[in-house]
Amino acid sequence: MVLYIIGLGLGDEKDITIKGKELIEKSDVVYLETYTSILFVSKDVLEETYKKSIEEVDRDFAEENCDKILDEAKNKKVSFLVVGDPLCATTHHDIILRAKKKNIDVEIIHNTSIISAIGECGMQLYNFGQIVSIPYFEDNYKPTSYYDKIYINLKNNFHTLCLLDIKVKERTVENIMRNKKIYEPPRFMTINDSIEQLLYCEHIHKKNIITKNTLGIAIIQIGTDNQQIISGDLLTLKDISYNKPLHSLIICAPTLHDIEKEYFDLYHYNNMKK
Amino acid sequence: MVLYIIGLGLGDEKDITIKGKELIEKSDVVYLETYTSILFVSKDVLEETYKKSIEEVDRDFAEENCDKILDEAKNKKVSFLVVGDPLCATTHHDIILRAKKKNIDVEIIHNTSIISAIGECGMQLYNFGQIVSIPYFEDNYKPTSYYDKIYINLKNNFHTLCLLDIKVKERTVENIMRNKKIYEPPRFMTINDSIEQLLYCEHIHKKNIITKNTLGIAIIQIGTDNQQIISGDLLTLKDISYNKPLHSLIICAPTLHDIEKEYFDLYHYNNMKK
Repeated sequence: MVLYIIGLGLGDEKDITIKGKELIEKSDVVYLETYTSILFVSKDVLEETYKKSIEEVDRDFAEENCDKILDEAKNKKVSFLVVGDPLCATTHHDIILRAKKKNIDVEIIHNTSIISAIGECGMQLYNFGQIVSIPYFEDNYKPTSYYDKIYINLKNNFHTLCLLDIKVKERTVENIMRNKKIYEPPRFMTINDSIEQLLYCEHIHKKNIITKNTLGIAIIQIGTDNQQIISGDLLTLKDISYNKPLHSLIICAPTLHDIEKEYFDLYHYNNMKK
Repeated sequence: MVLYIIGLGLGDEKDITIKGKELIEKSDVVYLETYTSILFVSKDVLEETYKKSIEEVDRDFAEENCDKILDEAKNKKVSFLVVGDPLCATTHHDIILRAKKKNIDVEIIHNTSIISAIGECGMQLYNFGQIVSIPYFEDNYKPTSYYDKIYINLKNNFHTLCLLDIKVKERTVENIMRNKKIYEPPRFMTINDSIEQLLYCEHIHKKNIITKNTLGIAIIQIGTDNQQIISGDLLTLKDISYNKPLHSLIICAPTLHDIEKEYFDLYHYNNMKK
């Protein structure tokens, strides 16, 4: 039959499109992917709004049981729900390829994602360079490749969207080795964490890009009622107390256009409601 | 009161979010912006679905009457509908700044846009460089700055999303000079036009980037029932007959990742349904 891959948007149960909701309503089985991002409502609320029972799918399940989902889609209508847009992250490209190889029809219902919603901060999407991901440092592993990408963007006068790490249902190396399904508590990188890590990178690589003059914009829970957009120098942004994650960070191009400047000033931490 | 700026998504009346539709339903006045993009359904269909009378707004109206719309929003609930995401293009940043200066509350309802929906072609959004716009050549004005931007992206092994020109309700210079509100027929740049113009740029600047080896992906009416995604070398893509606009063009990075390669092959023109 068919596999519907449906974006839920960024906030709550009402951020789905009418088309997406109608497809869920006529589906036989509904899965909700919970390992690349999170919504700000519980599964129960989704079930009530969409009038369907929903099965949560974590990373292990998706990897181990992807074929099961696809086999179901051979003779049922299966919806696979993804927070944001289903194809902005790389994770779900694989399931679509696998479905096509099995001659299963795939229908994709797009939605907003952090990549388009950041337009709200006033920086022009035409002035962004490559997007970077900032992963959590581990004790023995402190990757800094995003620092070089930010360097290139700054040199070309581009903004950089930094997507901050999310760890959901991760296992320790020990537990993986012992094949124990014991999961660590979820962690969501904050603006504060990310700027700390960038300062570490600066300390190591010394290209003089993360300094007291570097401007950034903290993007908090964009597209939700708790949204915050706060601009300023990175060193001050590092010490502000924000609403809870999800957080994303924009590092601004050295030179802003006029409208960008107006937005930057509008959202400046000096103008925050106390 | 409040100005709702609501994204409609890319296809038809059902691509709006539930939240967006509810806000329209409780609005006193509803405007539809028709000059930066188009939907594939008529205003009548929107009016019937959203159960509201809708006033179309062209560029002249928005520029001349922006204050009128904002003054209305002082004591009414006003919805301003925009195709795609309201803030992916730069056009609507200005109206928001103006509203904030007048202390009018603004609520933004995001939606998908070409910038996030292109994830569907399989190229990873992390591997894109700067987005470029390709404007129509005029008799006396043939800008080529996008060619240099594409050059930089290719050198860094980035994909380039090329947004193709849309001319809606444009006037000739003569008619503007004579202050005559006579509008030219709408024009939407095709993949074929855009590659012709890129070859002209290549002919002028000779950086050897638009050649028989340059790979691209034609994106046609993405997010609609008439969607096409067709990959191949640019010189062949130039001569294919596509579904009607809207068209966008991706110029691929020289080296593709494994999953990107699989998608490129999946959508290759050799595999098009005849």
